[in-house]
Amino acid sequence: MKKIDMHAHFFPRIEREEAARLDAAAAPWLRIDEDGETGQIMQADKPFRPVYRALWDPLLRIEELDRHRIDMQVVCATPVMFGYRYDGRAAAEWAARMNDLALEHCAYNPKRLKAMAQVPLQDLELACAEASRAQASGHIGVQIGNHLGPLDLDDDHLIAFLQHCGENRIPVLVHPWDMMTDGRMKRWMMPWLVAMPAETQLSIMSLILSGAFERLPASLKLCFAHGGGSFAFLLGRAENAWHCRDIVREGSPHPPSHYLDRFYVDSAVFDPRALSLLVDTMGERRVMLGSDHPFPLGEQEIGKLVAEHPGLDAGAKARILAGNALEFFGLQT
Amino acid sequence: MKKIDMHAHFFPRIEREEAARLDAAAAPWLRIDEDGETGQIMQADKPFRPVYRALWDPLLRIEELDRHRIDMQVVCATPVMFGYRYDGRAAAEWAARMNDLALEHCAYNPKRLKAMAQVPLQDLELACAEASRAQASGHIGVQIGNHLGPLDLDDDHLIAFLQHCGENRIPVLVHPWDMMTDGRMKRWMMPWLVAMPAETQLSIMSLILSGAFERLPASLKLCFAHGGGSFAFLLGRAENAWHCRDIVREGSPHPPSHYLDRFYVDSAVFDPRALSLLVDTMGERRVMLGSDHPFPLGEQEIGKLVAEHPGLDAGAKARILAGNALEFFGLQT
Repeated sequence: MKKIDMHAHFFPRIEREEAARLDAAAAPWLRIDEDGETGQIMQADKPFRPVYRALWDPLLRIEELDRHRIDMQVVCATPVMFGYRYDGRAAAEWAARMNDLALEHCAYNPKRLKAMAQVPLQDLELACAEASRAQASGHIGVQIGNHLGPLDLDDDHLIAFLQHCGENRIPVLVHPWDMMTDGRMKRWMMPWLVAMPAETQLSIMSLILSGAFERLPASLKLCFAHGGGSFAFLLGRAENAWHCRDIVREGSPHPPSHYLDRFYVDSAVFDPRALSLLVDTMGERRVMLGSDHPFPLGEQEIGKLVAEHPGLDAGAKARILAGNALEFFGLQT
Repeated sequence: MKKIDMHAHFFPRIEREEAARLDAAAAPWLRIDEDGETGQIMQADKPFRPVYRALWDPLLRIEELDRHRIDMQVVCATPVMFGYRYDGRAAAEWAARMNDLALEHCAYNPKRLKAMAQVPLQDLELACAEASRAQASGHIGVQIGNHLGPLDLDDDHLIAFLQHCGENRIPVLVHPWDMMTDGRMKRWMMPWLVAMPAETQLSIMSLILSGAFERLPASLKLCFAHGGGSFAFLLGRAENAWHCRDIVREGSPHPPSHYLDRFYVDSAVFDPRALSLLVDTMGERRVMLGSDHPFPLGEQEIGKLVAEHPGLDAGAKARILAGNALEFFGLQT
């Protein structure tokens, strides 16, 4: 059975000097250990996250895809690369450079490795320009963060960017980042375990409850990472609230469940019960294999959760493992 | 079939003058409209939330319980009443007054109405004293907010309070409040739809990942509101993270799934698929009917989701609708 992993990350060999040209204190760079196998994503002198070679070396990436029997993987930036808080022009140059490096990574095996671009989201004109430039140069979509400072996904600025993508048939993966904490829950990766799924749910809910889906073109291909965060499980709570509380429904003519055919989610939920609920809720045409590879919080055996799920039939598995992604990205079968 | 709703709220007829003695700017009071049927929870001159008579009038509450065929309901404070940010002594007096008013509310029909107390959580000694005083005066448990300013539930101060409750057989309901937003998502009740379930998940995860369940007595009866927030759906994500990332497991000798027999959740998830996942994950002995009545974000027909669930057998329904709550609160059958 064909398998396409549509959510994976890369981080290029960025030297400290190059990062420093964007921001000496916080722009990320890659420190590779002496053995060449492991390393750290760094911000200035500070380790941000331990990583290993599959993140930057397409040779090892392809070896791992072979081992997991994955036919194609779509890579995109590690969110710390986004650079949304810098001057637009500087961020646009940075994004273009990262996007070129992503294509270089994929050029090792262009049939099996594809890339989604990053954009300088803080500047609408430059973000649209980079999305289109990246599309023309071979990227098959863009990845954006789920919010821009204080602006959630329903903000006019972000809607205008999504509009551009819809009109130009550029698929969009929305990835949580810059996680809400109110200054709490620093330990044990709580921002990744708790706030990331909440950020993603927030983004979906803000598109729904603002009425944004009424204005966005139906042609827009939109996917949310990590199974859409906590959205599917909490849909009942939102649905009840929309029906029973005036201020919840004031921006949206239909209840949340009306909009489930307007977006996709990936399958990175790590539990067969959660995947059952996800597919039952979203439908088998709206879930795509996504692994978050090669991070420890990603799938350890890419595609296993879907392929071995006892409750999904062969047709559903074929769609989730590959068919939906082919449609989403407009790829040839 | 017997039905006990173990999560419902009340708000007493607090006059503005009484609230002002605690805090003229922010302590909540009840403004009842001329018809006596509706009103507003107020903070100074500012409406906080529209409410209706069942919240303060036990006569209408019992009429509604009759209509929904609910045998018993356990009421507790509306979280805006907690008063955790005030001086401990002032908050202790306020809590005692609210708790006495809760018992007064229940005295209308003491067989069918029970109360859980609030405590001045910011002062450990006073909180334990009020929990024990309330227990002695007829409260069948306490409700606490899921965090105290910057302190999550794993903080030593909060653990010491839970220890007191465990040793004195005082059941505890943990309710989300003071929701994280990082200054975003103000509209459409997003803090209730997104951040409340995240707060609850955070509290459960902080007890697990800190190793607190290793120190808390097994006698502690602990329940988390709203089906435990997004915890059950995201358990797979947490489980994978615990196994694959050292910093996730550094405080806890066992993976998150090991601790599912240490706490309960209520059934307020508003969707049969979500309830299926919840019962599959937690087990039928760990879910109790809870409605969030009489708020619009609560169950509109208390107990219907459980009673009419197509996938639960009669034994599971009997446990979830009443048996588990009888055990949790140590009530006679």
